[in-house]
Amino acid sequence: MTPVAARKDDDIPALMQRMGAAARAAAGPLARATTEQKNKALTVAAMRVNAEQQAILRANALDLAEAKDLSDAMFDRLKLDPKRIDAIVKGLRDVAGLPDPVGETMAEWTRPNGMKITRVRVPLGVVGVIYESRPNVTADAAALCLKAGNPVILRGGSESLHSSQALYACLRDGLRAAGLPEDAIQMVPTRDRAAVGAMLTMVEYIDVVVPRGGRSLVERVQNESRVPVFAHLEGICHTYVHAKAEPQMARKMVMNAKMRRTGICGATETLLVDRAVAKTHLPPILDELAKAGCELRGDAETRALDARVLAATEQDWRTEYLDAILAVRIVDGLDQAIEHINTFGSHHTDCIVTEDTAAAERFMAEVDSAITLHNASTQFADGGEFGMGAEIGISTGRLHARGPVGVEQLTTYKYKVHGTGQLRP
Amino acid sequence: MTPVAARKDDDIPALMQRMGAAARAAAGPLARATTEQKNKALTVAAMRVNAEQQAILRANALDLAEAKDLSDAMFDRLKLDPKRIDAIVKGLRDVAGLPDPVGETMAEWTRPNGMKITRVRVPLGVVGVIYESRPNVTADAAALCLKAGNPVILRGGSESLHSSQALYACLRDGLRAAGLPEDAIQMVPTRDRAAVGAMLTMVEYIDVVVPRGGRSLVERVQNESRVPVFAHLEGICHTYVHAKAEPQMARKMVMNAKMRRTGICGATETLLVDRAVAKTHLPPILDELAKAGCELRGDAETRALDARVLAATEQDWRTEYLDAILAVRIVDGLDQAIEHINTFGSHHTDCIVTEDTAAAERFMAEVDSAITLHNASTQFADGGEFGMGAEIGISTGRLHARGPVGVEQLTTYKYKVHGTGQLRP
Repeated sequence: MTPVAARKDDDIPALMQRMGAAARAAAGPLARATTEQKNKALTVAAMRVNAEQQAILRANALDLAEAKDLSDAMFDRLKLDPKRIDAIVKGLRDVAGLPDPVGETMAEWTRPNGMKITRVRVPLGVVGVIYESRPNVTADAAALCLKAGNPVILRGGSESLHSSQALYACLRDGLRAAGLPEDAIQMVPTRDRAAVGAMLTMVEYIDVVVPRGGRSLVERVQNESRVPVFAHLEGICHTYVHAKAEPQMARKMVMNAKMRRTGICGATETLLVDRAVAKTHLPPILDELAKAGCELRGDAETRALDARVLAATEQDWRTEYLDAILAVRIVDGLDQAIEHINTFGSHHTDCIVTEDTAAAERFMAEVDSAITLHNASTQFADGGEFGMGAEIGISTGRLHARGPVGVEQLTTYKYKVHGTGQLRP
Repeated sequence: MTPVAARKDDDIPALMQRMGAAARAAAGPLARATTEQKNKALTVAAMRVNAEQQAILRANALDLAEAKDLSDAMFDRLKLDPKRIDAIVKGLRDVAGLPDPVGETMAEWTRPNGMKITRVRVPLGVVGVIYESRPNVTADAAALCLKAGNPVILRGGSESLHSSQALYACLRDGLRAAGLPEDAIQMVPTRDRAAVGAMLTMVEYIDVVVPRGGRSLVERVQNESRVPVFAHLEGICHTYVHAKAEPQMARKMVMNAKMRRTGICGATETLLVDRAVAKTHLPPILDELAKAGCELRGDAETRALDARVLAATEQDWRTEYLDAILAVRIVDGLDQAIEHINTFGSHHTDCIVTEDTAAAERFMAEVDSAITLHNASTQFADGGEFGMGAEIGISTGRLHARGPVGVEQLTTYKYKVHGTGQLRP
């Protein structure tokens, strides 16, 4: 058996329709697969990726050679090396080690007429994953969807096609070894961007689309898609230093939240500081950030405290830098901090630093974000750090999945009603 | 304070934008409302509906006088009488009596680094409800959204505008008495259908649209909406009489599932019977249905059993009659029954009648519907019958809410992380 391939006479919509129909046909068998089968598919895939390391690196070298117009950051994401391949192998094994959510009884109750009602977790359906040229996402996304019992159609960035296909062959080896339908994992075999447009309209074959990538990709998907979307919007995350913050904790928290890794969605992009403590708490923070190479952009009051701070505009409050740049604003207090975050943030992840528990509780209740933290770094916004295992992203939408999207969020439920002949009166 | 109204110089999109912004502004205060406040708003509204019965009936008489082109069924749904107003009053009080889902701790765990993570239920956001000319939906939908802490924009059928406005005034009285923002419940004050189109594009102001009505309404909303939709598709529900069914139970079950009320979405539309027992079990069922006035449409084998059975076409397998009509098909056994239901059904509600527990479990696992039943009537497909209190409909979608959509399904969640200064390594 070979993957659905683009024939010479093919038009893209017809190809995508065939792939969609194949995914839908795999849904039933995959939903009924045992935990052991799914885990075997994952561990065999891991073994194959490990064994095929040289072939995968050669495929990646082809991609790198063909990639002309990539930024340094994009080129780095595309590049594989033995260490990164080891991480892919480990990722596949980790997903095999996660509990299987399918079949879990979520709730159970008996009605006065004796009917027993059970709410049972079942796979979500066919998932379409659209991502940038990051070969590792091919394995990560496929593994999570497989564990949750969902057929997946992968459409990675064009520049990573050779690398992704090499990894994809290992994934299919795993499915085959486990006796699972090979169409449970499919990869779009063409660089033609029309494939993305087709996926976004295939409501009969795709149940949810997960865009994983930069703002323009996510926005395109959100604007065009007829299929429901798990949006991973940008993370405009805030750290708010409250008047009752412990100054040393505040300083360490801001440094970690901003500088540990600047390119992840949980990195803090805006620092808010209460006016009451700005003169005491803020200067050492600004100094440490500046010395660490962080560009600072602040309001007038912040600039008065440190000459290295550039002038911020309103656009800075709305920007996900993903870089060593921090916007800084001095606020009147809790109310203004909450208002700023709800107005300019992206409902992703926000932190308050304070010793005042009541203020922390109000912050966490009123900041309308997927993740709110008290005295813990925004960089913890990650499914693994939450103990959920691997994640496919952090959803900033409100429906179905909010926050880290792991295996459990890739499921839905159904009701089973056990009766003994009950008729409705 | 008066509701947002269409001014003379108004264009509909501008009116809808103002309503959307008002709803969004009400979301924060409503999310923070206490259970007591929400319940007071509901009980005062109930009291006002009760007190204003005459005014509401006069408004309804105006609607009925103006309604020219309505079918008998539609006219009946539009018509109010004292008994129906009592039911509306009771409905409002019932929702007040439901537990408040907002603030509920759904899960809680502590990480090895000491961070405590809590998943807390919060309101879903602004809900848009688009429905037919059924005045009672005005009160039902508003009450459920209010209890879940969601501002709502109601857009009922044009023919019910006077009745709905009279009820709406009582709902606002309730909000005012409870000190809640009056824009927590808004009603589109115009019959112009452009209002619906505007609602379906207001992604910045509306978080989810709930269409409640016939197939054409739901399909229009699903096709046009940029806002996520809780689709209540039609209910093409099946009752399947397995080879091991107890014949008397099968007969009573089919009669109840089809004939108790034919116009509800949980009514059985297709009967499947195993060939092994068709000659023994089916004739008495057909006879009782025919005598009760049910039109029968069957395959050739069914017709051979009873001359009153008309010929069914494939279209019958795909039809929600909502009437005293039943499609009947004889199948080879469990596999063919499951395949028929997954192919022709609407993933709503399906029942197996059998004494064979293993067959029942396989049916409930493999039929891909929101509700599967063993030896209980499909007419139980109802939030109230499930013990969930009132419902806004039965969702046939897979995301977020599947099956009955009650107060709990109108919420989402957020994470609160309590730390003591944790930094991510």
